[in-house]
Amino acid sequence: MLRALPEEAPVAIVCNGTTQAVMMATPADIADFAHGFALTEGIVRSAEDVLEFEEVRQDTGIEARLWLPAERAEGLAERRRVMAGPVGCGLCGIDSLAQALRPLPPVASDLRLTVAQVQRAPEALRARQPLQDETRATHAAGFLVPDRGIVLVREDVGRHNALDKLIGALLRHGLDPAQGAVVMTSRISVELVQKCAVAGCPVLIAVSAPTAHAVRLADGAGITLAALVRGDGFEIFAHPWRILP
Amino acid sequence: MLRALPEEAPVAIVCNGTTQAVMMATPADIADFAHGFALTEGIVRSAEDVLEFEEVRQDTGIEARLWLPAERAEGLAERRRVMAGPVGCGLCGIDSLAQALRPLPPVASDLRLTVAQVQRAPEALRARQPLQDETRATHAAGFLVPDRGIVLVREDVGRHNALDKLIGALLRHGLDPAQGAVVMTSRISVELVQKCAVAGCPVLIAVSAPTAHAVRLADGAGITLAALVRGDGFEIFAHPWRILP
Repeated sequence: MLRALPEEAPVAIVCNGTTQAVMMATPADIADFAHGFALTEGIVRSAEDVLEFEEVRQDTGIEARLWLPAERAEGLAERRRVMAGPVGCGLCGIDSLAQALRPLPPVASDLRLTVAQVQRAPEALRARQPLQDETRATHAAGFLVPDRGIVLVREDVGRHNALDKLIGALLRHGLDPAQGAVVMTSRISVELVQKCAVAGCPVLIAVSAPTAHAVRLADGAGITLAALVRGDGFEIFAHPWRILP
Repeated sequence: MLRALPEEAPVAIVCNGTTQAVMMATPADIADFAHGFALTEGIVRSAEDVLEFEEVRQDTGIEARLWLPAERAEGLAERRRVMAGPVGCGLCGIDSLAQALRPLPPVASDLRLTVAQVQRAPEALRARQPLQDETRATHAAGFLVPDRGIVLVREDVGRHNALDKLIGALLRHGLDPAQGAVVMTSRISVELVQKCAVAGCPVLIAVSAPTAHAVRLADGAGITLAALVRGDGFEIFAHPWRILP
């Protein structure tokens, strides 16, 4: 079988002219990625905080340039200073153990899903992953709205990036994260729960298993965590009350 | 089926008293992780560069303290300054697109493997993953020596960490990376090829697909890359000459 390989390129998130981070990512949906990353990292708090966005393709990679109001930009130099850390997966760069497990804002939402909606979510997501169809090597994050199904999907070689792209797309489309569930093709680690909490996503549904720490974080942040969603059922690891029979 | 969830904790790599990075990792084989990370990130060049190692368990996570010779430590402040970047998967923190794709040292090795050895590698690795048996949610990196099989395995919730742990274990056991192949349970992205190149690993065998950029990097670094190793065969994406019929 002929199979295309997924692309991967360095993407620099540049805020008011200063690079905040460089990550390897699938070179698509860069505006979504930049908006989502800026939101889940606490650089911006709403779509209004992004005055202007520009995507600049360089020979060496892609620059995602965000222009923020002066009061947002003021904190960036300080933020940049407390960070250090190179290659790694996850919380590299947050220069202390305490900061790595920063307290999360509790998510408030009266969203409810049925067992059947959770059960069908991975299959519905799988039907909307064109990059995965082509490469069989990418992750996806989808947004599931009860009675509307999966309304938005973003794909990336990295699961953290896929979620940031989805959250950025919600922000840019004016969709409220509190009104739906995030569906991930991947395992659930601490960073994915952190991103959901900061963005205000009340429900996280995953095909694979969570880590023990991710479960504790979801519990503390008021996030419903359903994982190991397979053909024959699933397990609810935190806040089961949002899932009805 | 009852299934244990894998643990995950912040691990700070602290060199001569200064934190270089904090990453979420499986809290096991921390000495291997610290040594491997320090090697693949260019902080140390050999086991002799680590004068002393200490693992300190804190309430908030684990400190991996490395003590390096003065001449190694001198570069760290500078290195730390050029880094910036928070959560993300991969090359976050390397503060320019050019640095993200730093030139790799070419790997020199006369290692040869047979098609049968490559074909059997994932199954042999799978037989030595106790954490995966327990959790079904972790990655593994193994070291395959022709005629001896898989001689060393390390597991982690993150694939980058699993590889750093394996490379650190090779370093600490005095095993030459040029004498064997690295076998990974995961997809192959740019960072995994970079780590192999810096450590001098000539062959990378993976169960899943590489990204297009990872293939180009392996080609440039002289690394043999065999991927999509399944029951019915595999594909060689770079430097096939090390694999004999």
